[in-house]
Amino acid sequence: MAAPTIDVVGIGNAIVDVQTRTDEALLVDQGLVKGTMALVDAPRAEALYALMGSAAETSGGSVANSIAGLASLGGKAAFIGKVSDDELGEIFAHDLRAMGVRYETPPMQGGPRTGRCLIMVTPDAQRTMNTFLGASVEFEPRDIDRDLIEGAHLTYLEGYLFDRPTAKAAFRAAAEIAHRAGRKLALSLSDPFCVERHRADFRDLVHRHIDVLFANEIEICSLFETKEFDQAMGAVRGECEIAVLTRSAKGSVIVTPGETVSVAPEKVRAVVDTTGAGDLYASGFLYGLTHGSPLATCGRLGSLCAAEIIAHFGARPETSLKQLAAKAGLV
Amino acid sequence: MAAPTIDVVGIGNAIVDVQTRTDEALLVDQGLVKGTMALVDAPRAEALYALMGSAAETSGGSVANSIAGLASLGGKAAFIGKVSDDELGEIFAHDLRAMGVRYETPPMQGGPRTGRCLIMVTPDAQRTMNTFLGASVEFEPRDIDRDLIEGAHLTYLEGYLFDRPTAKAAFRAAAEIAHRAGRKLALSLSDPFCVERHRADFRDLVHRHIDVLFANEIEICSLFETKEFDQAMGAVRGECEIAVLTRSAKGSVIVTPGETVSVAPEKVRAVVDTTGAGDLYASGFLYGLTHGSPLATCGRLGSLCAAEIIAHFGARPETSLKQLAAKAGLV
Repeated sequence: MAAPTIDVVGIGNAIVDVQTRTDEALLVDQGLVKGTMALVDAPRAEALYALMGSAAETSGGSVANSIAGLASLGGKAAFIGKVSDDELGEIFAHDLRAMGVRYETPPMQGGPRTGRCLIMVTPDAQRTMNTFLGASVEFEPRDIDRDLIEGAHLTYLEGYLFDRPTAKAAFRAAAEIAHRAGRKLALSLSDPFCVERHRADFRDLVHRHIDVLFANEIEICSLFETKEFDQAMGAVRGECEIAVLTRSAKGSVIVTPGETVSVAPEKVRAVVDTTGAGDLYASGFLYGLTHGSPLATCGRLGSLCAAEIIAHFGARPETSLKQLAAKAGLV
Repeated sequence: MAAPTIDVVGIGNAIVDVQTRTDEALLVDQGLVKGTMALVDAPRAEALYALMGSAAETSGGSVANSIAGLASLGGKAAFIGKVSDDELGEIFAHDLRAMGVRYETPPMQGGPRTGRCLIMVTPDAQRTMNTFLGASVEFEPRDIDRDLIEGAHLTYLEGYLFDRPTAKAAFRAAAEIAHRAGRKLALSLSDPFCVERHRADFRDLVHRHIDVLFANEIEICSLFETKEFDQAMGAVRGECEIAVLTRSAKGSVIVTPGETVSVAPEKVRAVVDTTGAGDLYASGFLYGLTHGSPLATCGRLGSLCAAEIIAHFGARPETSLKQLAAKAGLV
């Protein structure tokens, strides 16, 4: 097998974020759980949008954000995910390509519109998300680009995508292609409700196929049905080569069969909006991992990228992460 | 004639801003004049977009921004302008209505797409704009809502809209309706190139119809073909009831037949992006004017609103201008 030509190819939902500041009252009125993501259908998305203030539209999607961040670090990145043949789809494709990401999934003709995520940011900088998956759910095995996966050092799968049977099948197809080619496979658990909905499938997927697992504290506890982080840490150890567990202001912990590496969070002057913190942590970590950095450096790169993203509105980097990382002596 | 039910109705281009940070090199390469607005056709807009980095989409349009700001101050505001029946059109309408603005112009079916303005913000916080007018240019006399104009204290016209004959006709129709109803008419000169293209028409319009004229230093000098601001000030005095001349960091000057009022600029910690500074100055000024404030207070309200907008990315207010104005003791 030839050397990889791409560092990371991401497979995930292709989503445009529709983001506004809001007060707590709207969340309470609408029965929304702060800090989480809920899936909504088109009528509910429209009703919520009508209640939201003036918004900013920026490209999003969890793994797509990670891939954009990886490109900003100077990594060779590609993305596979489905938009519709509409204006938000054009915006999504433009923004990825403008970061230097290879993105060639053909947009869907007709069918549902490009997916969007209604993001409400409360004064405490927390984000609450309602996602209309739109064209994203039409993602299916034939959208998997075999050459791309075979040519990538690592394939990164988004847990959110796991919500539909055809997407699950596409997921498994990608996993097989990657492993047959001797490549690595990473997964993000994405969201606690997502883990609850698919716990057994995720446990099986992690055990059989995943080399690198990303989860936050709540997600990993949900996966192993425990309330104790230490228990979850013990449970995940050995289930995959590397488990990367993020803990917001407490930093992160990297767990391997033989090692536990604690990483301090990067200091941030003022947290403006936590949207994308986990996504950008993954950017930094995966850049380090695919460039031979020690695990502690991978973690610090993750913290650095997460700190950039939470210091401003939106989930795509506003400054060159490559320059930031160089300044911090991490690359 | 009954008392007005609306403070200000704006008539302007309905535009979505596509905004990104860029370096000076792109402007030089593309022959763009920093700080100005150029009109571009669809192919040129696409070519420029392809060269731009990852962008944020937010509702824009010069007078639409002013109207959004007026609503944020607590004013009763309406807008007339043309979008297409597409996703950017939906975004534009949503964002205005979310601010409490009455917006009922029917979107165009088929025809050109919703207009967009490609905005490049350089490290010096200056913005350079390339506008594809799209559906905006289809604005015509029958889009003028007679009842709305008759019921508004003041109608505010956007100079940018003056670029097409049908829009010019709509403009004149609005002017006549407003004056017959005993209402006031305001105009923004919008851009130096816009003034150059339509100097004679603008001079005639100001002389015959306009009560309140907004212009920056370069625009007013261009209108009267002089290089000296003092000469331009002398030339405009008496041409309309009130001329409001903005001078960036030098503040603004309000010129009436019998008075000259100088207004200091509001202090801003860090200027992030000057997009919308003039538009939001007009929000504050017109709020004051339609609520009986003295001219000096109108000017200070203008400076306050402009200061809010240049302290962040984008041309729509991120905080309640009403609260800001109350805190400053101006309302």
